[in-house]
Amino acid sequence: MPDPPPARRHAEAQRVMDRCARLATHTEAPGRITRRYLTPPVAAVHEDLTRWMRDAGMRVRVDAAGNLVGRLGPDHPAVPVLLTGSHIDTVPNGGRYDGVLGVLVGIAAAEALSRVDLPFALDVVAFSEEEGVRYAKPYLGSAAVAGRFDPAWLDRTDEQGVTLRDAVTRFGLDPAAIPAAAYDPQHVLGFIETHVEQGPVLEQAGRPVGVVNAIAGQSRLLLRFVGEAGHAGTSPMVPRRDAMVSAAHLIAEVQEYGRSIAGLRATVGYVQAYPNVRNVIPGMVEVSLDVRHAMDDVRDAAVAALLDHATRIASEDGVAVEVMENQPQPATEMDSGLSGLLSQAMADAGHRPFDLLSGAGHDAVAVAAAFPVAMLFVRHPGGLSHHPNERVDLADVAVAVDVLTRAVRLFAGRVRGEDTLLPTLPVDLPMPGAVPGAGVGATPA
Amino acid sequence: MPDPPPARRHAEAQRVMDRCARLATHTEAPGRITRRYLTPPVAAVHEDLTRWMRDAGMRVRVDAAGNLVGRLGPDHPAVPVLLTGSHIDTVPNGGRYDGVLGVLVGIAAAEALSRVDLPFALDVVAFSEEEGVRYAKPYLGSAAVAGRFDPAWLDRTDEQGVTLRDAVTRFGLDPAAIPAAAYDPQHVLGFIETHVEQGPVLEQAGRPVGVVNAIAGQSRLLLRFVGEAGHAGTSPMVPRRDAMVSAAHLIAEVQEYGRSIAGLRATVGYVQAYPNVRNVIPGMVEVSLDVRHAMDDVRDAAVAALLDHATRIASEDGVAVEVMENQPQPATEMDSGLSGLLSQAMADAGHRPFDLLSGAGHDAVAVAAAFPVAMLFVRHPGGLSHHPNERVDLADVAVAVDVLTRAVRLFAGRVRGEDTLLPTLPVDLPMPGAVPGAGVGATPA
Repeated sequence: MPDPPPARRHAEAQRVMDRCARLATHTEAPGRITRRYLTPPVAAVHEDLTRWMRDAGMRVRVDAAGNLVGRLGPDHPAVPVLLTGSHIDTVPNGGRYDGVLGVLVGIAAAEALSRVDLPFALDVVAFSEEEGVRYAKPYLGSAAVAGRFDPAWLDRTDEQGVTLRDAVTRFGLDPAAIPAAAYDPQHVLGFIETHVEQGPVLEQAGRPVGVVNAIAGQSRLLLRFVGEAGHAGTSPMVPRRDAMVSAAHLIAEVQEYGRSIAGLRATVGYVQAYPNVRNVIPGMVEVSLDVRHAMDDVRDAAVAALLDHATRIASEDGVAVEVMENQPQPATEMDSGLSGLLSQAMADAGHRPFDLLSGAGHDAVAVAAAFPVAMLFVRHPGGLSHHPNERVDLADVAVAVDVLTRAVRLFAGRVRGEDTLLPTLPVDLPMPGAVPGAGVGATPA
Repeated sequence: MPDPPPARRHAEAQRVMDRCARLATHTEAPGRITRRYLTPPVAAVHEDLTRWMRDAGMRVRVDAAGNLVGRLGPDHPAVPVLLTGSHIDTVPNGGRYDGVLGVLVGIAAAEALSRVDLPFALDVVAFSEEEGVRYAKPYLGSAAVAGRFDPAWLDRTDEQGVTLRDAVTRFGLDPAAIPAAAYDPQHVLGFIETHVEQGPVLEQAGRPVGVVNAIAGQSRLLLRFVGEAGHAGTSPMVPRRDAMVSAAHLIAEVQEYGRSIAGLRATVGYVQAYPNVRNVIPGMVEVSLDVRHAMDDVRDAAVAALLDHATRIASEDGVAVEVMENQPQPATEMDSGLSGLLSQAMADAGHRPFDLLSGAGHDAVAVAAAFPVAMLFVRHPGGLSHHPNERVDLADVAVAVDVLTRAVRLFAGRVRGEDTLLPTLPVDLPMPGAVPGAGVGATPA
């Protein structure tokens, strides 16, 4: 397994960068990158990806949830499959690497492996939805692949009142076929996701890439403050029941509380006042609350404290607080066998292995419900994510392609029983059929 | 001038109530009353009003700004005109009397006067726009009548991106003809607006109606907080530049400051975060600020203090504050001659005259820029306005119709020089051509 010449790795990485730039032009909003689930620019992304996958020798399909899948290697139902990839949707006015980078690094690795006789199929998946923007529900694409797509989600509506069901149909897909997008756990070896870090850890440590050891748990809430509407000019200040004032007190407390607990992230990203008119006291306000921490009990305590604060401060103004949604997502452990392959590949490529926590949720969270998962993070200079100034460096992308390619080769060697280079790692195949929910300890590694 | 029998006044008031209920069914949102400028339900309101005005012996026209005008009496260009009426647009999910009541009381008065030989024309105007909802600009209709419609407003856009110009055209009107909607000040005797109080003063004083002595000044601002967007899960709490947190601190302070100054009204009714997505730190937030007080210097000081607070608290988080709009509207004095007629009419009807301040802005504010104005307020039980539970009592509406009808008769007597019943009031006609901007002391009364 000779190392490829540096010039070839550089050319591969440059192509990944060029392709990220190209996909950034497929947007709902000219001048910025906004690409929500199954909107028209998604079709343009599919077109480009299909061409590049075919050039890499892959067969391409789109499943009923809108995921585009390129396959390298054998194509019969019972073949074992290793998955890689990430998502192609974006937040409004997002960056060009979040999600897309993992898909293109996957294609680059597949291209590098196209002449290798792998003992499994390698599927590069471009998940259709991860951010949760259009239907206020994240991981739609990866949940479908993991067999965890809830048919009730089809009734959700976007801002224009279009149901998820109609969005799928309008994209030319069949909502009834979404269950068939699920992989059979008996045949899935695992999922390796490459993603830009979206945080400062690798930059501060001076590392090009790192291996994720866990994804922080996350609580997503939607709170509704209900007061009483009234005329802004005639209603005396006391006793107003201004729902916006109560919401404002919570928003201020979210930042203050968040700053008081090490490692906590607490954010109100969404606010909607009703009727939201300048001369009317808001009678109702909805706010989101996003709370994350590596330790689930710290997160749970934070959510309880913030809800308690909201209720107490609102009641002083006669405003009621209702919890409309509360979706807790426990921390997700990575599969130690797959993660060990990534660390070994880093070492083989001349980089000391480096582990870090993911503060952001990723498709790997949804996929981990069914299969072993691992993640490779790419350094993120500047640390700005969900933002147009998001960036990655060419040299780091070259390392990511190299490490992912090596990890797949190592996995192939293990499957073939040629695993003499990895004496400290067990040589058993992961047995997906025996995987517990979160993928923790899924492989007997 | 014999008093009409109580039964007839009761029947007139019942018809006004029935008509308010009927117009409430013309709405953009079934189950609530939402009727913004020149939306389809406005055409249905025009249809009903046209029929009722014609039944009262009036000629009806719609001007290019969408105001519907019914005229009782002579119809040649040089005839002196007395105006009455109010607006027919609503806030979203508003009440059924705000605006509409003044139009229907005007029609009832015109009907009561239809056999009287008035020495002037009586125009009942249904102003097309007062609330400022669709184009974030109030008094569009009354500004046109007063000759103060700024053509630059035609380029404003609503939430769907429809320009005001296109809205006028789609309603079948000609935007270029809006200047012709203005009345010639040489011929306008004045404007008397009947309106539900939208406040608690008349209810607390136990009075059915009252005469407005001034309309509180109002500052309407739009502020933009500019921080930096980022990923809610990975961006450390420090140093976040969360525009929503800064806006929240202002919103909380607006209520606290508002409660600290007697008579002040301070409200944030409108909030828009960008990108307004649950997992993104808001990089930009816009909020409205509505500040009112009877004394202009108190209002100006409040605005300055709140802007200072916003800038100071935002800068602590590295967030900038920009003042996007700042529309100060000084307090509007009523014309003492016209107001005196209303007080005299109240006395004649057996009610001790009663003056009060208007906390809300009204079409009279815009009209006062060109003509003498006066306002008659109707008691508002419960005090809820800009709200579906807004209400008025039948008996009070009967008093309002009676007082307005008597005031027009008194005015007619004054114009004819029969003003022997009003020895304390001057008999000079108001001379609109000599009116200064705000209508203060406009008549030599």
